[in-house]
Amino acid sequence: MPTAGIQTADAKANNSHANYHAQMNHATGQKPVTCKGNVKAPKNIIFMIGDGMGPSYNTAHRYMLDNPATAQMELTSFDHYLLGTQRTIAEDEHENITDSASAATAMSAGVKTYNNAIAVDNDKTEVKTVLERAKEVGKSTGLVATSEVTHATPAAYGAHDESRKNMAAIADDYYNETINGKHKVDVILGGGRDYFERKDKDLVSAFKKDGYQFATNKQEMQAAEGQQLLGLFSKGGMPKMIDRAASMPSLQDMTQTALDKLSTNKKGFFLMVEGSQIDWAGHANDITGAMSEMQDFDLAFQTAIDYAKKDCNTLVIATADHSTGGFSIGANGVYNWFVEPIKQMKHTPEYLRAQLMKDGADVEQIIKANVGFELKAEEMQAIKNAVAAKDAIKIENAIEAPVNTRSLTGWTTGGHTGEDVNVYGYGPASSLWRGNIENTENAKHIFNLIK
Amino acid sequence: MPTAGIQTADAKANNSHANYHAQMNHATGQKPVTCKGNVKAPKNIIFMIGDGMGPSYNTAHRYMLDNPATAQMELTSFDHYLLGTQRTIAEDEHENITDSASAATAMSAGVKTYNNAIAVDNDKTEVKTVLERAKEVGKSTGLVATSEVTHATPAAYGAHDESRKNMAAIADDYYNETINGKHKVDVILGGGRDYFERKDKDLVSAFKKDGYQFATNKQEMQAAEGQQLLGLFSKGGMPKMIDRAASMPSLQDMTQTALDKLSTNKKGFFLMVEGSQIDWAGHANDITGAMSEMQDFDLAFQTAIDYAKKDCNTLVIATADHSTGGFSIGANGVYNWFVEPIKQMKHTPEYLRAQLMKDGADVEQIIKANVGFELKAEEMQAIKNAVAAKDAIKIENAIEAPVNTRSLTGWTTGGHTGEDVNVYGYGPASSLWRGNIENTENAKHIFNLIK
Repeated sequence: MPTAGIQTADAKANNSHANYHAQMNHATGQKPVTCKGNVKAPKNIIFMIGDGMGPSYNTAHRYMLDNPATAQMELTSFDHYLLGTQRTIAEDEHENITDSASAATAMSAGVKTYNNAIAVDNDKTEVKTVLERAKEVGKSTGLVATSEVTHATPAAYGAHDESRKNMAAIADDYYNETINGKHKVDVILGGGRDYFERKDKDLVSAFKKDGYQFATNKQEMQAAEGQQLLGLFSKGGMPKMIDRAASMPSLQDMTQTALDKLSTNKKGFFLMVEGSQIDWAGHANDITGAMSEMQDFDLAFQTAIDYAKKDCNTLVIATADHSTGGFSIGANGVYNWFVEPIKQMKHTPEYLRAQLMKDGADVEQIIKANVGFELKAEEMQAIKNAVAAKDAIKIENAIEAPVNTRSLTGWTTGGHTGEDVNVYGYGPASSLWRGNIENTENAKHIFNLIK
Repeated sequence: MPTAGIQTADAKANNSHANYHAQMNHATGQKPVTCKGNVKAPKNIIFMIGDGMGPSYNTAHRYMLDNPATAQMELTSFDHYLLGTQRTIAEDEHENITDSASAATAMSAGVKTYNNAIAVDNDKTEVKTVLERAKEVGKSTGLVATSEVTHATPAAYGAHDESRKNMAAIADDYYNETINGKHKVDVILGGGRDYFERKDKDLVSAFKKDGYQFATNKQEMQAAEGQQLLGLFSKGGMPKMIDRAASMPSLQDMTQTALDKLSTNKKGFFLMVEGSQIDWAGHANDITGAMSEMQDFDLAFQTAIDYAKKDCNTLVIATADHSTGGFSIGANGVYNWFVEPIKQMKHTPEYLRAQLMKDGADVEQIIKANVGFELKAEEMQAIKNAVAAKDAIKIENAIEAPVNTRSLTGWTTGGHTGEDVNVYGYGPASSLWRGNIENTENAKHIFNLIK
């Protein structure tokens, strides 16, 4: 659709978010293909979780994808596959808004539990996950995330712990907990190398000894042979898409590699893919990062859908665990949400903060090179003051504020919010997900499908 | 589900929102009945619009309905009928977040247009509405709203104007624009008497002369005979449910009366019902009023569903035009949304403001009698200061703030926001509404159904 009156007259054309819609190869008019034959019990299941991807994020992503040259607003890849929404509430005696651990346990094991729980119930008893069930029946399994692969969401599929904070113990679970004498997870791709290569233990060597290939960058990942692969691409969480070096795989790259490995098993596979950092950007009230991660997640979703359409025996579900940040499209009484200021950012505030905190950094130069619109004197001064104070949070806030103000992006919290989240899907049995469901029903349906 | 740790220890039990869930007679476990026979073309259509009812409002209403004595969170009436979501964006050269007029025109006529437009397109040419089509084919028609019946949403079904602001001209349209020699709208129920009884014209007398019954209160409305009825229950918008006198009909009462009248036509009917003031409360960032109006809308929805289940030839669609206020369930980093402070309000801040602005009003007495939790000294002082300044907006804000703070309700704007809104439905052809649709598709489907 045509661009509404832009707030920032000082736009610069050349920046990494500017081609957001062109990069996306988006799927306007793309209708689900009907696969003939098996429609009831898929052999393969790809379960995708956009962490923190509340409904506002899905619509905002559509605004970002819009091609101003056309009359209509173009659709996102997700829009063609909406099945319904899900309820996210935890069963926690202190909190009635869920965290990612409780929500992931609901989706992985079908059990409502307390915030912080990794595949344990309210009595701290371990509960079986759909990934474990898949492995029991001989399927291959995979976990892909842009956070540490030991972070709450993937952990709730492949480990058990009374606390999400125990990420070393969670990495241990991935190695130690076997099913029919085999490791639980065949393909593990994401961040969090620090939890595998530790002073007390070297899980990377242990996995290698047991036959896993190991990759630390995109090239190694794509060159790896065999069916079992551990890929750890950063010490902690991976950089966000907009900040990522070319040597680092995208979520789409990791999803494609996981599918290449897992699909060699004739009994099928279960793969969980998380767009982990939509949530992290939401916590930071960073719309640049949030839209970067929506793009990353969308491309991975397209890869999953493409696979399912060719395979005709694969169920794809994509949903979220909760929403984050109280993000609103529009703020301060204005009936506009401007994408240009977001597209004019070359990096996230988080990335820029790291540059700004280096000794001798030239604040003005870094900001002018990476923020594609003119800052007011007081906005620039606020960044300089925060850098002088060496206050990381303040620096990020000072960079986020001008983007939020110009785009008219609203936020109400640094935490989560309680609204239902969207559920998208395609493939055999996807109609089970229609309507408004409880988050536990994700696991219940999948358990039934891989009996 | 059990109540999470409550922020307000000073709760008082007896207040009008306290029995929110008991009043609702809510429909846990109630599954849609399958009507046999005609499933493709309904004879009757009830189209319901919760103005401003974004997804957060739907989930918040569920929190409000929750019975703390049970382990699960109970479902709302809507939850059983979710079909999908719809995109709300206007085709406006200046604004990319819709207003109610543009969204209602999209839903009534299938045409994207500018903000402010009442059933006219971007060239200001009148466009035919589904209500007009229904009348053309001999069906009965009705408009029910808690705003002025001439307000943007009902107006876009029964009138045409280049601006929503021309509410007298819109009332004139209801009288003057005839189809096959007959008035367009058989049953008109809501607020806005001032636009019918004017210095320049008395439309009430004119409608009466043409055979319409006229009602000004619930009793008159329910006693009215005949098939055509004009009911105007307030000079402007009607009071919100929580503030309403017993003599005034609820949205449910009006819906029931409209159905009683319209269903006598063997050719069927089209009825639009609007829960108008969810939006108004959202604009005011008033969670008390918002939840009051969700309750009013839910009860009307139940009446529509009950009718459709008995009739088996009626399509019910319930949706929203957009969301309002940037409302979030949770705020300020806390993982809780507390309903108790909201339930402890006996009236909306808007209602209390009117009481407080009367000569000689005792501020402390009025606040203590109507706000069921203890205010901090500075909160009470802020209200007193606002009353002393005779500043209506400040008074309302000063009453809203303690409720928002205690309930952890977030807001980002006094205007609208752009996220997709939910679509619920039941009855013949309701499956056409599945998935993510454009708001114009509502009209397109209905035009096809009443060809």
